[in-house]
Amino acid sequence: MARVALDAMGGDFAPRATVAGALLALVDLPVEHTIQLVGRTAVVDETLDVLFAGEFAAHRALRDRLEVVDAPDVIEMSDKPTVVRSRPGSSMMVGLRLQADGKSDAFVSAGNTGAQMAASLLVLKSHAGLKRPAIGTLFPTAQEPVVVLDSGANVDCSPEELVQFARLGTVYAQDMLGRRNPAVGLLSIGEEPEKGNAAVKEAHQRLRAEPGIHFVGNVEGRDIPLGRRDDEPLDVVVCDGFVGNVLLKFYEALAPTLMAVFAKALGAERETLRSAFKELDHAEHGGAPLLGVKGVSIISHGSSSPRAIKNAIGVGLRAVESRMSEHIGRRLEDAAAAAERAEAESTSSSVA
Amino acid sequence: MARVALDAMGGDFAPRATVAGALLALVDLPVEHTIQLVGRTAVVDETLDVLFAGEFAAHRALRDRLEVVDAPDVIEMSDKPTVVRSRPGSSMMVGLRLQADGKSDAFVSAGNTGAQMAASLLVLKSHAGLKRPAIGTLFPTAQEPVVVLDSGANVDCSPEELVQFARLGTVYAQDMLGRRNPAVGLLSIGEEPEKGNAAVKEAHQRLRAEPGIHFVGNVEGRDIPLGRRDDEPLDVVVCDGFVGNVLLKFYEALAPTLMAVFAKALGAERETLRSAFKELDHAEHGGAPLLGVKGVSIISHGSSSPRAIKNAIGVGLRAVESRMSEHIGRRLEDAAAAAERAEAESTSSSVA
Repeated sequence: MARVALDAMGGDFAPRATVAGALLALVDLPVEHTIQLVGRTAVVDETLDVLFAGEFAAHRALRDRLEVVDAPDVIEMSDKPTVVRSRPGSSMMVGLRLQADGKSDAFVSAGNTGAQMAASLLVLKSHAGLKRPAIGTLFPTAQEPVVVLDSGANVDCSPEELVQFARLGTVYAQDMLGRRNPAVGLLSIGEEPEKGNAAVKEAHQRLRAEPGIHFVGNVEGRDIPLGRRDDEPLDVVVCDGFVGNVLLKFYEALAPTLMAVFAKALGAERETLRSAFKELDHAEHGGAPLLGVKGVSIISHGSSSPRAIKNAIGVGLRAVESRMSEHIGRRLEDAAAAAERAEAESTSSSVA
Repeated sequence: MARVALDAMGGDFAPRATVAGALLALVDLPVEHTIQLVGRTAVVDETLDVLFAGEFAAHRALRDRLEVVDAPDVIEMSDKPTVVRSRPGSSMMVGLRLQADGKSDAFVSAGNTGAQMAASLLVLKSHAGLKRPAIGTLFPTAQEPVVVLDSGANVDCSPEELVQFARLGTVYAQDMLGRRNPAVGLLSIGEEPEKGNAAVKEAHQRLRAEPGIHFVGNVEGRDIPLGRRDDEPLDVVVCDGFVGNVLLKFYEALAPTLMAVFAKALGAERETLRSAFKELDHAEHGGAPLLGVKGVSIISHGSSSPRAIKNAIGVGLRAVESRMSEHIGRRLEDAAAAAERAEAESTSSSVA
């Protein structure tokens, strides 16, 4: 049994798309799961009325698995992330606060991503030993999807941050994707350890020595769509948030672009092609967890459709059920303890 | 009339693919153009014999427009770029030397990219005011192709280097693509000037003040496949060589990946889809000029087919005919002069 708080006011098509997404999710989910719709009560109630009078008329019983939680304020897409401090009544802050207070298990939003990161850090806090959380995004590939992180939370990353991403991504791939011993690649411009920018070159050396990480070495841009490095499947790709974000947006824009190219070339209808692009559609993957906060905060695309919201709720539930956040906390503690031991050993050996 | 030197020994399928590419190019080019095949004479001559006895039997007259230039040594794909100094007899060094000696107008190679950059810099030198040349690559888009630079020659770029890329890319787009007032975007993770890593944020401010550059502001990953920013067409995208190289390899690997996805989804034959991917096929674009060297050095993909080599030769010819290198030299001189004037003014005003 899990309770997912959904930011009813967040996203380009809120509250209609968010509330409809919650209903779509409840139709499919086991009955023990409930959803908390966080937003302006009057607006949310009205949207529910419209949906239950229309496309969800056959599903009015779902109302019992919904709770509407009032949040008088809204953070807009154009607001700076820093506004979250001064908006405790916003749907984002109220939704996350539920979790901090033990009244909810996960938070999902399609609203302002920067604000969601700031609010999650402020309310949930990050796990000990982690400076800043990272966004883990699934990239569809020719094989299984690959986790790319960071995909936008951090720019100008230090080698230590890249190593942290490898730890976070490993737990994500284990808990959310069921990969037993996730293969982690470091994104660079050549396979050789000496290729890359300064941060990547140092991170490469540190990852080689990192216990508990199945580090397969540097990977290149081409390995992501292929989903493998040489003949080994790839599960996690580590990069700074600048590169990750550029790649993510590039990939997202390709589906519509290619659809146009193909429709022209093959003389086919766009609708016929749409199904082929399902694999490449971010709505299929729904949401990207903010990794490293003490709790579950799922970032959904601003343009999320009801189906994308539904899938994001599913991602949130999987994170709760797999206890990903707890596992991340433990993993970071272990790494800190190992670093301390290494430090103590090097001190004692230099004394000796 | 132009003379193009081709590294007959460079590339995964050399010398067969390179020599065949030269013949394909000559079939289509006006008769005043000639090609210099640079490599081991015995090997090149034998390859010519095979091709003239086989698929090019009807084109033996092309032999008169070919010159075989002996280069006893070869730089392998796995060699370090630094080996070029100690291999003056390699096909790369001999081919570039022809140009430095006024005996050739352009050089094309599908060999070791790092070595080609090092050799080009060593033999041709870079234009005054430029620390390091950049690779400009064409990315197919939903509109016209966009020039992305740097796509791999430089990592850890300074703001000044990013500004230089804007100058190089502007001349490339004008001379090679016929864009009159090329729109230059700076690749970042948000449109706002304050978004990005440290180098990008400073480069943004400098590009806004840069004369002769039609700077349209920051662009995001999605703007590249779309080929526009908002409603304005995009001609040049500036980024550091780490990001550019990751994007390039990512894009290159997408065509085969998507072909597999589509063939499965549509039940179509791969061959039927191949034509639709023509637009996304790097062989169509053939070669990426190394921008900033005093001369013409075209970098072709290691896996180049004869068609890719033919197109790369075409790129080299366009660079010669449009006098791109000369225009780049002038542009960089102008920028240096403007910087000097600004410096002098600020000194005199601070004295006053």
